Amino acid sequence: MVIQWSFGSHSIELRGIANNSETNIMKFSQPQTLKSIAIIIDAEFVGEDNFPITGLNEIHVVEQGDLVFVDHQKYYEKALKSKATSVLINKKVDCPEGKALIISNDPFRDFNKLIQHFSSFKKNEKTISESAEISNSTIVQPNVFIGNNVKIGSNCIIHSNVSIYDNTIIGDNVIIHANTIIGSDAFYYKKRAEGYDKLLSCGKVIVEDDVEIGANCTIDRGVTGETVIGKGSKLDNLVHVGHDTVIGKNCLFAAQVGIAGVVKIEDDVTLWGQVGVSSDITIGKGAVVLAQSGISKSLEGNITYFGSPAEEARKKWKEAAAIRKLPEIVKKLDEI
Amino acid sequence: MVIQWSFGSHSIELRGIANNSETNIMKFSQPQTLKSIAIIIDAEFVGEDNFPITGLNEIHVVEQGDLVFVDHQKYYEKALKSKATSVLINKKVDCPEGKALIISNDPFRDFNKLIQHFSSFKKNEKTISESAEISNSTIVQPNVFIGNNVKIGSNCIIHSNVSIYDNTIIGDNVIIHANTIIGSDAFYYKKRAEGYDKLLSCGKVIVEDDVEIGANCTIDRGVTGETVIGKGSKLDNLVHVGHDTVIGKNCLFAAQVGIAGVVKIEDDVTLWGQVGVSSDITIGKGAVVLAQSGISKSLEGNITYFGSPAEEARKKWKEAAAIRKLPEIVKKLDEI
Amino acid sequence: MVIQWSFGSHSIELRGIANNSETNIMKFSQPQTLKSIAIIIDAEFVGEDNFPITGLNEIHVVEQGDLVFVDHQKYYEKALKSKATSVLINKKVDCPEGKALIISNDPFRDFNKLIQHFSSFKKNEKTISESAEISNSTIVQPNVFIGNNVKIGSNCIIHSNVSIYDNTIIGDNVIIHANTIIGSDAFYYKKRAEGYDKLLSCGKVIVEDDVEIGANCTIDRGVTGETVIGKGSKLDNLVHVGHDTVIGKNCLFAAQVGIAGVVKIEDDVTLWGQVGVSSDITIGKGAVVLAQSGISKSLEGNITYFGSPAEEARKKWKEAAAIRKLPEIVKKLDEI
Repeated sequence: MVIQWSFGSHSIELRGIANNSETNIMKFSQPQTLKSIAIIIDAEFVGEDNFPITGLNEIHVVEQGDLVFVDHQKYYEKALKSKATSVLINKKVDCPEGKALIISNDPFRDFNKLIQHFSSFKKNEKTISESAEISNSTIVQPNVFIGNNVKIGSNCIIHSNVSIYDNTIIGDNVIIHANTIIGSDAFYYKKRAEGYDKLLSCGKVIVEDDVEIGANCTIDRGVTGETVIGKGSKLDNLVHVGHDTVIGKNCLFAAQVGIAGVVKIEDDVTLWGQVGVSSDITIGKGAVVLAQSGISKSLEGNITYFGSPAEEARKKWKEAAAIRKLPEIVKKLDEI
Repeated sequence: MVIQWSFGSHSIELRGIANNSETNIMKFSQPQTLKSIAIIIDAEFVGEDNFPITGLNEIHVVEQGDLVFVDHQKYYEKALKSKATSVLINKKVDCPEGKALIISNDPFRDFNKLIQHFSSFKKNEKTISESAEISNSTIVQPNVFIGNNVKIGSNCIIHSNVSIYDNTIIGDNVIIHANTIIGSDAFYYKKRAEGYDKLLSCGKVIVEDDVEIGANCTIDRGVTGETVIGKGSKLDNLVHVGHDTVIGKNCLFAAQVGIAGVVKIEDDVTLWGQVGVSSDITIGKGAVVLAQSGISKSLEGNITYFGSPAEEARKKWKEAAAIRKLPEIVKKLDEI
Repeated sequence: MVIQWSFGSHSIELRGIANNSETNIMKFSQPQTLKSIAIIIDAEFVGEDNFPITGLNEIHVVEQGDLVFVDHQKYYEKALKSKATSVLINKKVDCPEGKALIISNDPFRDFNKLIQHFSSFKKNEKTISESAEISNSTIVQPNVFIGNNVKIGSNCIIHSNVSIYDNTIIGDNVIIHANTIIGSDAFYYKKRAEGYDKLLSCGKVIVEDDVEIGANCTIDRGVTGETVIGKGSKLDNLVHVGHDTVIGKNCLFAAQVGIAGVVKIEDDVTLWGQVGVSSDITIGKGAVVLAQSGISKSLEGNITYFGSPAEEARKKWKEAAAIRKLPEIVKKLDEI
């Protein structure tokens, strides 16, 4: 029932988000060995020295060959049974067959160390980075910033003062209005006694063909995976999309909609103005959510919703009609 | 009752929005002929070859001499009886006297073709376009983008990283804070089997004298007409104003207010923080809307409103007081 | 009960906001005399010609030696008994011992004149002003604007298209994401018959160590005092913070939160997505406010809140459960 947004605790739950390993940037260019990874973080390990590790990933996007981290007993089993073949863990548990363990007293800190080692943030010297690939038919207006390894397809318009962080992939016929940000970091912290500790983001954003994104929107990149805006979807101004959220095809989001991280929105979903969506839920194909509603749990498709927290709109209208009669009812009951 | 924002269906309803034909950019510099327009879109027409067409407009801002489009039988009569003298229509109906018709199997597509023909988007090579006219007494901070044919009056301050799209008109003594966008496209699509089809925007924004617009706001331009921020109105940060919305004089909008397209807000209206306003309605002079309210229908002036959907605030407070007693009432009724 | 944001009426109420006189920019570099100040605004005064005035301040941040203004009888006593030693006032009242008065028929206008005299806005010729002090270890991405007298500590990342207004102070290890604005003007106007009259801002923003601010946020500066983001606090994207608001340490604000001016938020407060907070209130240490709630009055710490207006969440859940039963209750009561 509680509506919450954008917080880290979902990070160690399995989710069915689509993942495209070919474009996943936390795959190493060539596999590392268990020992070489353990040396970077100065940790003990269980497994052969040269056991291969192909990438670093969060558990909801993890694949065979990857290293995943887990720091809470509650999630040990999920992590150990996941597709990950190496597990960075804070207890020396039995190692599943065919897998390897790295033992750390602080897997969160050490996962960050690995991300920093393989994908540290670097200053961009130029407004449009030399490693960016932009189709000739695409218009890039003045004052746009385009980071490293960004790819932009054909017939796009990127309006002035847009900021596109490293590794973003943009398809064909995409319009991005002024001052929008693609690829800002996930809002993802671990609470420690001394304050919040940030999980470093090294994922990316994928904007598919025929998408239009309004002015002053913010699309966060995945932590290790991808945030996806599906083909043909249209976002109005001042829309926020959190990290690792995957939006389907032909969705329509009106102005000031806010979507937390790790949300799955299926095709043909309409969210009207100022709707808020909590993290780690799914909105079914063809659902319509009326303005200012707050979505705190997964919703079935092809139904219209309203309210905060949202329920079926026709149920809400009945409640609203009853509430309108309520002051008179209270008065009458007081008289009895 | 349903609260919706910024969607295309309102486009073919007549509305009483003020329109200044002198500044309307979809007036042709010299009248076109019926035949020349029909040739551009390869369409049949009813009328004299040299019947004059003076501009292209949506029906809510159409004027004598203009071409309007209509693609739904429900709105045929409105279009044919409007001030438009030429009608782009998807059925060969009887032509009203003194008017002309262009017959198209897809008026939406062909209206777009005409807009593209007469007003196609062009890349700006410079941060401040050569065709912009900016008074010497106005301060333009670094990194501002100013598009083609923009006019800015005297004693203004345009803060850093602001983006001003083509054709915007800004009066005297206007302050625009950093990273605000003036003139982004209307959020306006037609749903087709294969996805959303965008109606191209060729309108503009007019910001009158003595207006202050906060940081990170987004003001969309009219589709063919004008979005207007009236004299002396003050907008806080992160405010969204949709296409063709006309805001009166001395209005006050607090932070994160969102106003859909084709709204009329009369003079001296106050909207407090995070208020949302649906498309195609009117808010009367002197109305006050309390924070986080959602406005889904037209409101009378000089009254204070609250709630989502909003009603008179004093009625809402009574309901809220009754709701506070409700859990106890339910308990008592259960006992009976 | 009424939820309102960001309006000027709070300006003349005493509040307990922390103030750091060493960094306060409306302290004069050397004390002015009563007579010299009165001459600037051509006003009568009560006191010795050379009575010293050390700065200009609003009453909630005023200190000994400062001049404060007051223009409503209701607040005369507060102003005259405040720490201010000079009072700009619109009535010739008895002068308290050891203090001085300046008599003006329009203290608001004349306070503005003084601010303009001592701290007028100047065009920045460069993207990064020459007077800015930025640590070598800090990364400033392309297209960032940094105003006069800005100080930025070590190991920060300032992402592309950020705008930092004059006099902002940023600590160490701070991350500011793309297109965020630090230091925009207060949304603060006096209503006059002829329209809104702006109180000029000459305060600043202080961002303490270890803060992260998301993309497209807006942090307004103090009117004469300071807006503070406390050590270790983390703000998600599209967050608004009003003028003179002071945020404690290790707070967490999710996306699209909006906080009005002159708010005090104590340490360890969590505000989830799209929460709105009215001006001139205090949120106690460790309070948690669930998504989309609206805070209209001060809240005690260490409690979870929900609703608009917000109350204790567990009380709200009970009301929500009762409302769900309401349509049936109304039906039954109609039958009786």
